[in-house]
Amino acid sequence: MKRENFSEWFNQILEKAGILDIRYPVKGLYVWLPYGMKIRECVIKIIKEILENHGHEEVLFPLLIPEDFLRKESEHIRGFEEQVYWVTRGGSKELNVKLALRPTSETAIYPIVSLWIKSHKDLPLKIYQIVNVFRYETKHTRPLIRLREITTFKEAHTFHRTFEEAEAQVKEAIEIYKKFFDRIAIPYLINKRPDWDKFPGAIYTIAFDTIFPDGKSLQIATIHNLGQNFSKPFNIKYEKVDGNFEYVYQTCYGISDRVIASIIAIHGDDRGLILLPEISPYQIVIIPIIYKESRQKVLNKAWKIYNLLKEKYKIYIDLREDETPGSKFYYWEMKGIPIRIEIGPRDVDEGVVTIFRRDKMERIKVRDEDLENTLKDMMNDIYKNLRERAWKFLEENVVRIFRIEDIREGYINEISLCGKDSCGRYIEEKTGLRVLGEAIEKKEDGYCLVCKERTDKIYRVAKSY
Amino acid sequence: MKRENFSEWFNQILEKAGILDIRYPVKGLYVWLPYGMKIRECVIKIIKEILENHGHEEVLFPLLIPEDFLRKESEHIRGFEEQVYWVTRGGSKELNVKLALRPTSETAIYPIVSLWIKSHKDLPLKIYQIVNVFRYETKHTRPLIRLREITTFKEAHTFHRTFEEAEAQVKEAIEIYKKFFDRIAIPYLINKRPDWDKFPGAIYTIAFDTIFPDGKSLQIATIHNLGQNFSKPFNIKYEKVDGNFEYVYQTCYGISDRVIASIIAIHGDDRGLILLPEISPYQIVIIPIIYKESRQKVLNKAWKIYNLLKEKYKIYIDLREDETPGSKFYYWEMKGIPIRIEIGPRDVDEGVVTIFRRDKMERIKVRDEDLENTLKDMMNDIYKNLRERAWKFLEENVVRIFRIEDIREGYINEISLCGKDSCGRYIEEKTGLRVLGEAIEKKEDGYCLVCKERTDKIYRVAKSY
Repeated sequence: MKRENFSEWFNQILEKAGILDIRYPVKGLYVWLPYGMKIRECVIKIIKEILENHGHEEVLFPLLIPEDFLRKESEHIRGFEEQVYWVTRGGSKELNVKLALRPTSETAIYPIVSLWIKSHKDLPLKIYQIVNVFRYETKHTRPLIRLREITTFKEAHTFHRTFEEAEAQVKEAIEIYKKFFDRIAIPYLINKRPDWDKFPGAIYTIAFDTIFPDGKSLQIATIHNLGQNFSKPFNIKYEKVDGNFEYVYQTCYGISDRVIASIIAIHGDDRGLILLPEISPYQIVIIPIIYKESRQKVLNKAWKIYNLLKEKYKIYIDLREDETPGSKFYYWEMKGIPIRIEIGPRDVDEGVVTIFRRDKMERIKVRDEDLENTLKDMMNDIYKNLRERAWKFLEENVVRIFRIEDIREGYINEISLCGKDSCGRYIEEKTGLRVLGEAIEKKEDGYCLVCKERTDKIYRVAKSY
Repeated sequence: MKRENFSEWFNQILEKAGILDIRYPVKGLYVWLPYGMKIRECVIKIIKEILENHGHEEVLFPLLIPEDFLRKESEHIRGFEEQVYWVTRGGSKELNVKLALRPTSETAIYPIVSLWIKSHKDLPLKIYQIVNVFRYETKHTRPLIRLREITTFKEAHTFHRTFEEAEAQVKEAIEIYKKFFDRIAIPYLINKRPDWDKFPGAIYTIAFDTIFPDGKSLQIATIHNLGQNFSKPFNIKYEKVDGNFEYVYQTCYGISDRVIASIIAIHGDDRGLILLPEISPYQIVIIPIIYKESRQKVLNKAWKIYNLLKEKYKIYIDLREDETPGSKFYYWEMKGIPIRIEIGPRDVDEGVVTIFRRDKMERIKVRDEDLENTLKDMMNDIYKNLRERAWKFLEENVVRIFRIEDIREGYINEISLCGKDSCGRYIEEKTGLRVLGEAIEKKEDGYCLVCKERTDKIYRVAKSY
């Protein structure tokens, strides 16, 4: 399993580690396996915690959207029209109103929210849901990356009194996603998408992009300022303090299964997964090294340590008798378990255990009495190391480019552009890459690579998933 | 809000307590609100814990099932044919293969499981998922009870070497659901459904039925022994110890949103919800009774108690200044919060607090130093009381009947029947009620009410949702 051949490695590890079964016989649909489900649940827990700390409440809207709702905002339906799955029959009957499988839930949520919001006192309103959404993708589909059923779509929707409050919410959303991706040690670049690539119906779109081991960028989160583009057709109005009515200002933002794809792709190595303690189904696996004569004393110590640690850590003790210690090591390394504790007869005699950490593939001996402190420090250090390593890789693959002909596939290219659509489009045509958009946290004086106008804007360009 | 007018009460409480918004403009589809979502999450946590303790692993299969899969087991498709929603278009294209929205997931799961199972060592296999499923109901739809999108469908699927092992699994499933319904204090009767009412494709179906305040029965869980009915068409075979191959034996069992419906309907009263501590979004709400001059000392004590309890309980402190204590009492009673702590200026002076418990509507004064112990005992007692009360209501509404003309709507009627379909069908025609099936844990010598044959079988008959 060489991670150099990234596509192949990715599909192999999904199967071998028990994340997904990719043999479901419909294009773009996959089966989540138990180990994958556990990782997914850890990730969901983190994003829910962060959203709730920021005052978002969880809701759940129906999957099926009547055709007339979906068509209410004209740019929105133009953007999604070719991707919508339509339910046209119920039993043996043709439905009177066609029902769309939600490609995203604006048009399901907003008609109902228009009933909820009456006065300025009802604002701001911040809600989110975690649902499956459907896109009839005609491009090449890929597990966790380009799906026809996105199984883990977290979408937040917010409603505000003024444009400024919606702008402030976009900034809050950026902070929320920074916290989230920092917590799961995924590096990112934040780009304001060019106009032709924004969310259908939005005023503008801010995206988080990361970089995969093959040098391609992947969009992992988007944040949209919707202005009043949806509140007008959906009639979401509130009574102001002065008694007049105004349409609300809105934002929405989302992440998807791609978060899990990133964790697998960015932290993994040739041996398989490498999981952060917080998102690993088990944080520690104990492997007793059993020989006939010392069997009992080794098992005693293994259970003693298991009992010592079980309240603090998600821990598993691998007692399989038909596998050698070596094959167990290999197995749990492939599964990405952060820390392995090996206990052999000599370790019992010497009052030590052997600790192995997956991220650095390092093995140390620790005295029994130091075990708990060592584990605690090591868990933190694994997080720190994975995060630093991932950021280092990203930073090494961002290149500052001053001539169009130097723009390279396999890197994120930073170039000066004036911001006009025509100049961005020219870059895309010339290079065959994607203009990810303007770096929102970076400025540099220069000249647009296309029209030579003065500009301090930096744009990012990359081959993209 | 009188619970006597049950249907009206139920819809009102869903809205007022913030469980569901029932105004989504497609029949049989509803919107989960934040408070409802929190209750739902508590319930999901319990069933997951119990299933995992019994060795079930969580998976997630796609929503869309190709038509030829759905049609593989002939009785199954006959049973569901008229209830299936069909996706026939993607974007502007007609799909080559029609895709069903899963009405249940046997036909999505079994083709893939047939790839997983090779040898007797792979058995038993026990998996479950919690998903949305779809039924094009033509009957009257009702929130949480009869839905077109069932949003919380927990389905378990198990695979075994022999028929006996599948039978043992049916018994384990009964134990699982007993644990689950006992934990959420919902009373049940366990009935073996008559042949004409079993799950399409099953050998037989065991159901858990409860009784609603209006005297109608509600099916809240079903367990199916599938024998080899699915393993043959889906080719799920395993290699036996002797090297021969055999088709596996299967069971499946499920619960749905109806669990939440039961919690609301069975425990509630004229004032609204009554929630068990384990499934209440907050277990305790503190309401400081604020007067101008004693404001600070009351708030100090309220926060002190909040901080004392916040690690142990889900607790909320209601500091709204634009609501009177009385209206706060009313609000949280309606929301079903198990325990309310009221703190007034006199309570501060006397070193006591006032505790109110929702289930009995009782108020007591407790000395500060006794608070923690009192709360702990009271939480247990609330559970015990709600459970006893619910079982008492069920038992009072089960009647032993000896003549067909005495069978009554509004009760669960227990009658002697021989077990022949023709006798059961006769009872249904004659009474307009539903034969729920044979009581699996009760026998009594008697004569079939229809054909007068000797029998020790007891059948249950009721008006049913």
